[in-house]
Amino acid sequence: MPWMKRCLDLARTGAGTVSPNPMVGAVLLAPDGTVLGEGAHRTYGGPHAEARALQAAEQQHSPAALQNATLYVNLEPCRHHGKTPPCTDLIVEKNVPRVVVGTVDPFPQAQGRGIRQLREQGVEVEVGVHEHACRRLNEAFFHHVDTGRPLVTLKTAQTLDGRIATRTGDSQWITGEAARTLVHQWRAELDGILVGRGTAAHDDPRLTVRHVDGPQPLRLVLDRKGTLSPDRTLFTDAHADDTVAVVGDDRPRPDYAGPLTNRGGAILRVPETDDAHLDLHALLQRLGTDAGRDAEPLQSLLVEAGPGLATALFRQDLVDRFFCFVAPKVLGDGRPALHDLGITEMDGALTFAEQAWATVGADVLLRGYRRTV
Amino acid sequence: MPWMKRCLDLARTGAGTVSPNPMVGAVLLAPDGTVLGEGAHRTYGGPHAEARALQAAEQQHSPAALQNATLYVNLEPCRHHGKTPPCTDLIVEKNVPRVVVGTVDPFPQAQGRGIRQLREQGVEVEVGVHEHACRRLNEAFFHHVDTGRPLVTLKTAQTLDGRIATRTGDSQWITGEAARTLVHQWRAELDGILVGRGTAAHDDPRLTVRHVDGPQPLRLVLDRKGTLSPDRTLFTDAHADDTVAVVGDDRPRPDYAGPLTNRGGAILRVPETDDAHLDLHALLQRLGTDAGRDAEPLQSLLVEAGPGLATALFRQDLVDRFFCFVAPKVLGDGRPALHDLGITEMDGALTFAEQAWATVGADVLLRGYRRTV
Repeated sequence: MPWMKRCLDLARTGAGTVSPNPMVGAVLLAPDGTVLGEGAHRTYGGPHAEARALQAAEQQHSPAALQNATLYVNLEPCRHHGKTPPCTDLIVEKNVPRVVVGTVDPFPQAQGRGIRQLREQGVEVEVGVHEHACRRLNEAFFHHVDTGRPLVTLKTAQTLDGRIATRTGDSQWITGEAARTLVHQWRAELDGILVGRGTAAHDDPRLTVRHVDGPQPLRLVLDRKGTLSPDRTLFTDAHADDTVAVVGDDRPRPDYAGPLTNRGGAILRVPETDDAHLDLHALLQRLGTDAGRDAEPLQSLLVEAGPGLATALFRQDLVDRFFCFVAPKVLGDGRPALHDLGITEMDGALTFAEQAWATVGADVLLRGYRRTV
Repeated sequence: MPWMKRCLDLARTGAGTVSPNPMVGAVLLAPDGTVLGEGAHRTYGGPHAEARALQAAEQQHSPAALQNATLYVNLEPCRHHGKTPPCTDLIVEKNVPRVVVGTVDPFPQAQGRGIRQLREQGVEVEVGVHEHACRRLNEAFFHHVDTGRPLVTLKTAQTLDGRIATRTGDSQWITGEAARTLVHQWRAELDGILVGRGTAAHDDPRLTVRHVDGPQPLRLVLDRKGTLSPDRTLFTDAHADDTVAVVGDDRPRPDYAGPLTNRGGAILRVPETDDAHLDLHALLQRLGTDAGRDAEPLQSLLVEAGPGLATALFRQDLVDRFFCFVAPKVLGDGRPALHDLGITEMDGALTFAEQAWATVGADVLLRGYRRTV
């Protein structure tokens, strides 16, 4: 049994509910391979994975069992007092002699200090097991720590020939049910969803989590001039308190502003660029701080974009992950998924640092990672 | 062990060398599961798979062993005198009591008669084991028997966003080495390769089998007006005797005609349509008969097409299989893989009766089958 992989599986059970904390899983293992206890960090503010694993072990085994055990955990145990006591203290207190850590915690208050403290207290620590997978799992957390911006996942769904709608605008449905369900899963696991004005105007999407259980993420809509119709679902439905309309800095108050803020939604003002677009860099920096609300910053953003927004994000190198569904269908003509990126040579094509193809129902999904972790 | 699948694996060893015969593999099995003999049809005119399997068994086992055995074969054994004696006679002569047949042979001289003859002679025959896979393996053979035309495999290679070149025409390379090698494999396994005039004019392709071992297929180039330059590689290289230039019926003799025919190549004249294209239906019927040469008809054709020819084939429903490589690259703009197919609703999108996705190196390959088998 690859125990670090088990930690990653456990960690994933906190997807969507632990942010802005990272996802963490822990396994406590006896020398003979018996699992003494397992745990995951499940909710922001709740117990850490290490504490849960140790507690589970104590409930079923003698304290002596812990004193020969190895604790596997995908992220460096914390040594700072956050919403819970430091895990390093707990590990030392329970006399766990050996810890295997997937990867170092990049958080400024951590950065190897937890590992150092454990070693100083006589705990044997191994670091860097399945490190790449451990970093990929929490890439939004890592990216946010590094850049102050949310990790941007651009999601599109297209026909084999790269069309997102027929030339008359018909786009339902390109992909199958399994693909659409997976998008809802991503919605539930990421902190926010962003759409452009065109999508809001033409498709009037709900951007809610259906087909799967999970928390409703923040819904952001770009509306530079503030001219979207006040009757849009995002402004009026039961989740309006999760809506943020992003408008230009000096624009007049949109017609929907009062009703939206009365329902708990927000208007976020962002500078405009010289070429009359919202400044997407500024927007992401802002979302990485507070998203215009008195709330936790966004670490991750799912962009469900039409060609205009998708092209702008690629042109400004703001796409971190490109998740692209391709349906085994051919239109021949229709609305392209992207517009001109200024690429004239094949060697200049936009590529990915890492990528994975997976079939999802009858469709295929490319997970393209623009950056290594 | 699924013995019929073993037959299919054996049969595939004849890909590219048995046409216009079908690919056949056979396994002779003892009641205790011992393989007594195996065989494949390897070359056109050579021994059939059943004969090879029986011969292999006789060389290593007693005649008595055969009298309790079961013969597995993916296609109905022949009962007609072709280039070799009938396999049905051989099975009866060797006292094989039981035959398991993947699928019936659609060839007019067969069509169940081999099975009937075996049964009349007291052989127990089971028919229809992994029938779908058996029919798919020999779909070119089946298609040709049904329609008189070669099975058309349209092959394209595109970026994720459906581009086959940048807007300046740069197309090297879209896919990786593994994908390009697989195309050479297909070339070696199919009877002919077809390109349009644009491809011949701009890319000057060799259309030879490289990177893999295998026979050189016929090379066909569409050149309605006969205006391609006589210096094209297809007309001048060492394989010019495998080149067929397809020109319009009433067109003047192309400049390359003399040198090409001197080298063993051929000019094939085909009617033109009212809208000034070569009649592709007429071309395929002709290729299914003799390809303009005193030679075996083509059962299978690999079309390595640019957008014009690909669109024409789809519009006329002449694509039987669409093998489309998609590279994990984005151009944003560039030459599309296809032109307008007249589709305005998503429900009207061109889809596939069956499809399979497979990763090939960093790329993904869609094998889309327009028809069931």
